[in-house]
Amino acid sequence: MTTDFAATRALFHLPAGVIYLDGNSLGPLPRAAAERVRGCVEDEWGDMLITAWNRAGWMDKPRALGDRIGRLIGAEPGTVVLGDTLSIKVYQALASALDLRPDRRVILSDTGNFPSDLYMADGLVRTLGQGYELRTVAPEAVEAAITPDLAVLMLTEVDYRTGRRHDMKRLIAKAHAAGALVVWDLAHSAGAVEVDLAGSGADFAVGCTYKYLNSGPGGPAFIYIAPRLAAQVRPALSGWLGHEAPFAFDLDYRPGAGIERMRVGTPPILQMAALEASMDIWDRVDMADVRARSIELTEAFIAAVEAACPALTLASPRDPAARGSQVSFRHPEGYAIMQALIAHGVIGDFRAPDILRFGFTPLYTSTADVTGAVAILKRIMDEGLWDQPAFKARAKVT
Amino acid sequence: MTTDFAATRALFHLPAGVIYLDGNSLGPLPRAAAERVRGCVEDEWGDMLITAWNRAGWMDKPRALGDRIGRLIGAEPGTVVLGDTLSIKVYQALASALDLRPDRRVILSDTGNFPSDLYMADGLVRTLGQGYELRTVAPEAVEAAITPDLAVLMLTEVDYRTGRRHDMKRLIAKAHAAGALVVWDLAHSAGAVEVDLAGSGADFAVGCTYKYLNSGPGGPAFIYIAPRLAAQVRPALSGWLGHEAPFAFDLDYRPGAGIERMRVGTPPILQMAALEASMDIWDRVDMADVRARSIELTEAFIAAVEAACPALTLASPRDPAARGSQVSFRHPEGYAIMQALIAHGVIGDFRAPDILRFGFTPLYTSTADVTGAVAILKRIMDEGLWDQPAFKARAKVT
Repeated sequence: MTTDFAATRALFHLPAGVIYLDGNSLGPLPRAAAERVRGCVEDEWGDMLITAWNRAGWMDKPRALGDRIGRLIGAEPGTVVLGDTLSIKVYQALASALDLRPDRRVILSDTGNFPSDLYMADGLVRTLGQGYELRTVAPEAVEAAITPDLAVLMLTEVDYRTGRRHDMKRLIAKAHAAGALVVWDLAHSAGAVEVDLAGSGADFAVGCTYKYLNSGPGGPAFIYIAPRLAAQVRPALSGWLGHEAPFAFDLDYRPGAGIERMRVGTPPILQMAALEASMDIWDRVDMADVRARSIELTEAFIAAVEAACPALTLASPRDPAARGSQVSFRHPEGYAIMQALIAHGVIGDFRAPDILRFGFTPLYTSTADVTGAVAILKRIMDEGLWDQPAFKARAKVT
Repeated sequence: MTTDFAATRALFHLPAGVIYLDGNSLGPLPRAAAERVRGCVEDEWGDMLITAWNRAGWMDKPRALGDRIGRLIGAEPGTVVLGDTLSIKVYQALASALDLRPDRRVILSDTGNFPSDLYMADGLVRTLGQGYELRTVAPEAVEAAITPDLAVLMLTEVDYRTGRRHDMKRLIAKAHAAGALVVWDLAHSAGAVEVDLAGSGADFAVGCTYKYLNSGPGGPAFIYIAPRLAAQVRPALSGWLGHEAPFAFDLDYRPGAGIERMRVGTPPILQMAALEASMDIWDRVDMADVRARSIELTEAFIAAVEAACPALTLASPRDPAARGSQVSFRHPEGYAIMQALIAHGVIGDFRAPDILRFGFTPLYTSTADVTGAVAILKRIMDEGLWDQPAFKARAKVT
């Protein structure tokens, strides 16, 4: 292993007294991000004003950052661009893919997909009308449901609740054999597991940057299009920054070169400044090392929790090859248990109806974190510390 | 006048030696934004981590900020929400409006509209197929082109190049009489002119926050829906944060209450922190005062430029009631002249093919700025200082 995880851990701000196992929801602050954002606000926006679009290179950042993320997901250079939110990027990818299969009407997804992906597909299908259909099956039934009427297979590689991982390469091959295109949501994959978009023959992929990639709350999403497809794509969300010549202010839309056409409006510069600080860390990291370390941590956590807390049931696949970088356990009082954990300094999260979710993020999660978290979890379970009204009262965001 | 513009000017960071007349493109940094963003990065993201979604109120900010902007545009409380970019918000509003007129197929807009609005409409029309059509006429021909086949009239109130202002109330009445709905783009209106959405009978409106509202580069957009329509709207971009219960993670989409359904994905928290600092200033300001002062400044600028620089031709309406808060002049060498101005410390911008554009933003533009800018412009014109290769070489962003 060439990556020094003690060194990367030191590059993050981790509050004293907290064991943070929720980097799969919101990654922690890279220490350098504070200064990078300050410089963006004061030195660039403050002092350069509008001229920073050129002088500080703001306009090029969605592509430059796209390439840096692309390296982590096996994308070819020049195939990834940042912008918008993941839901918008799902819509873009899906609309583009459907447009490339005009004689077909069916999108296939699974019931383990993140709901927003299904909602966006539903909105697109309703907007399109004309017999378009979103079909959902159980995650394990996806492969058998790939039939020759499919236009697009739309899946999230790693299940947001259980961490179950789809076999990307196998499903792409199956879908392509059926004449369909595939849209992958890498929300819980980018920075979490090794992804090989180019090697898998992927068509479209989207993902977010505020989880494992530590861009901060509401950081922009990314989108990938295979080079063999990009020039054929006619964007549904045809915004000016995806135009071939945005500052010509032509009345007619002409798509930009390749992935540039997936840009829409003005990119969020402050959020991208934070992401840059995080990518300075990621640039030094080997994803094979991250994956190996992630498996060590999740294996240790599962073994320790199962030994210490028999009331919790593993919801994640036992085989590490079949899961991402998170571990989930079920318990009917999962919500209250998670609130108790948070009150005792162990931050994971809860996903309805009964999932306790813990993310393992090798850049800053240590073996001591695993041991410490399990000790606190054991105490909460053994002593019933979760059984308090304050822990059962639902917050707005869970 | 109750607003103290000397006091508001002191709340902005204005670099020494610069006269900034481009706040209609990117508003300058509110001094308090630097600390507000720092707190968001370090104290909220850094120390609260994921719990800041509740503890720092992140999830509620798109609505809370929407109400503060709503006051400036005459919107009813609870009718405005922040998110995404303006282009995305145009798409949302337009798709919603078309969906409410299922028996009609025509969108009418004008050739003075910001190109991205036309591009987004074009993308939507192409996605919808089925005979949908985007029809564009010259700005002055809009009223006569409102015919009973229109589904939606989509206009930008203030022309981004010339500052020409449409008569919102009159065009809404005409469109409603023809059975059409109206989508207004307030990019150059919000914080620039008095807008009375409720009093004008507006249906949909969208706008951006990084111009007159000073949210910083890439700050989020906003969208308004009239209360009488909101509950009927079926969102095309049906993201999870527009769901009635986002954290129930249901597989089926059910729109949230009223304007909440226009939320899509995770909002950009760092950008909203900057906007909050700006809104702390805007909360103290009376839009009638802003408008009166804007007219004083633009009238003074036009008179002085016409007296000092006869080679420049006024491109904006001469009647202040017919223009927004910017003034534009034409010159065949407009690009080089603007570059020379910037090099001499007067920042405006250029819009193809020949427009020199100057924004007047009473919160921080002074009478001395007007006098100083015209003196420098006169010198550049009199001495031909613009006639240098360095000023003629086009930058990426103009």
